[in-house]
Amino acid sequence: MFLHLISNKFKCLRYFSCNMVKKALVLVAEGSEEMECIITVDVLRRSGVHVDLAGVNGKWATKCSRGVVVLPDIELSEAKGPFDAIILPGGLGGSKAFCESKALGEMLKEQEPPTALRTHCVGFGKNLTSYPSVESQVMDGGNYTYKEDEVVVDGSLITSRGPGTAFKFALTLVEHLVGVEKAKEVARGMLTSY
Amino acid sequence: MFLHLISNKFKCLRYFSCNMVKKALVLVAEGSEEMECIITVDVLRRSGVHVDLAGVNGKWATKCSRGVVVLPDIELSEAKGPFDAIILPGGLGGSKAFCESKALGEMLKEQEPPTALRTHCVGFGKNLTSYPSVESQVMDGGNYTYKEDEVVVDGSLITSRGPGTAFKFALTLVEHLVGVEKAKEVARGMLTSY
Repeated sequence: MFLHLISNKFKCLRYFSCNMVKKALVLVAEGSEEMECIITVDVLRRSGVHVDLAGVNGKWATKCSRGVVVLPDIELSEAKGPFDAIILPGGLGGSKAFCESKALGEMLKEQEPPTALRTHCVGFGKNLTSYPSVESQVMDGGNYTYKEDEVVVDGSLITSRGPGTAFKFALTLVEHLVGVEKAKEVARGMLTSY
Repeated sequence: MFLHLISNKFKCLRYFSCNMVKKALVLVAEGSEEMECIITVDVLRRSGVHVDLAGVNGKWATKCSRGVVVLPDIELSEAKGPFDAIILPGGLGGSKAFCESKALGEMLKEQEPPTALRTHCVGFGKNLTSYPSVESQVMDGGNYTYKEDEVVVDGSLITSRGPGTAFKFALTLVEHLVGVEKAKEVARGMLTSY
């Protein structure tokens, strides 16, 4: 079930901290969706959030799902938490790598909310969404309520669906990390709306 | 004037070739807008277009405007045309590098349409758009008609405005390079519309 959950599109576990600069960790691995990854990193940075782009399999050049090669800022083992958000972009290859990473599993267990983490089952009992074609995979044996909204916020778990919903996902993160006014301001600067 | 034009957001000079796999060259330099760059590369590749991501200043790791580091596929001197499209993403730092690149200037001169290239003034007399804040810079001494549409198509020159219009820009390229049905199909797969 945990594997299913972290193979969704756009997972975000948030950790509420005090009113300092927020810190986010965006993960990338071979086969991650480059648009989902880069849009999230960029939009969060425009909003003043400190973002570390971490390579799950190292700090090496990482080839994404459509061949764009990115260099992570750090490797996962260098990530210094706690983070206000941990974001896992979609992409089948990337999700597989996220599932296989014990280090990432450990990190997720240290993240809020503790009830979900106690069972190693992030999002247990929560509302969520995913890319439509993996709905059955997500729901197979899972105790979730599947939604078809572009972005689903359920407590500390924020999920979304695909590249076309990536701006809305990223701006929703901004709203929750920084505030709705900042999300609107950043959206205007990018010539989109929120 | 040429400098102004190529400092716009999203320039695309198209070269109509026969019905083979289309080839596009997307340029990147330090300070390019990573979202505009990556969305264009990704969407074109989803549509079956062959895309080379070329580093204007070499094949080195290239830090974009919000700190995302990408590795170009090739350096500009390795680009083997003709290309059906040459795409220049926005971003002040990237645009400056594009303006300063003699090799890029030579390549643009070889690209259609010849009337524009004869004067070294790509888009001379055309309708175009840009990021709103650089409108006056674009229009200063320029013989263009400025539009505020999200994407402006005028013959072989396709321009757009910013990150929030990048999906529409990329899908417009797909329509012109491959066909409107492919653009719609790719949009559906990304959970957006066209």
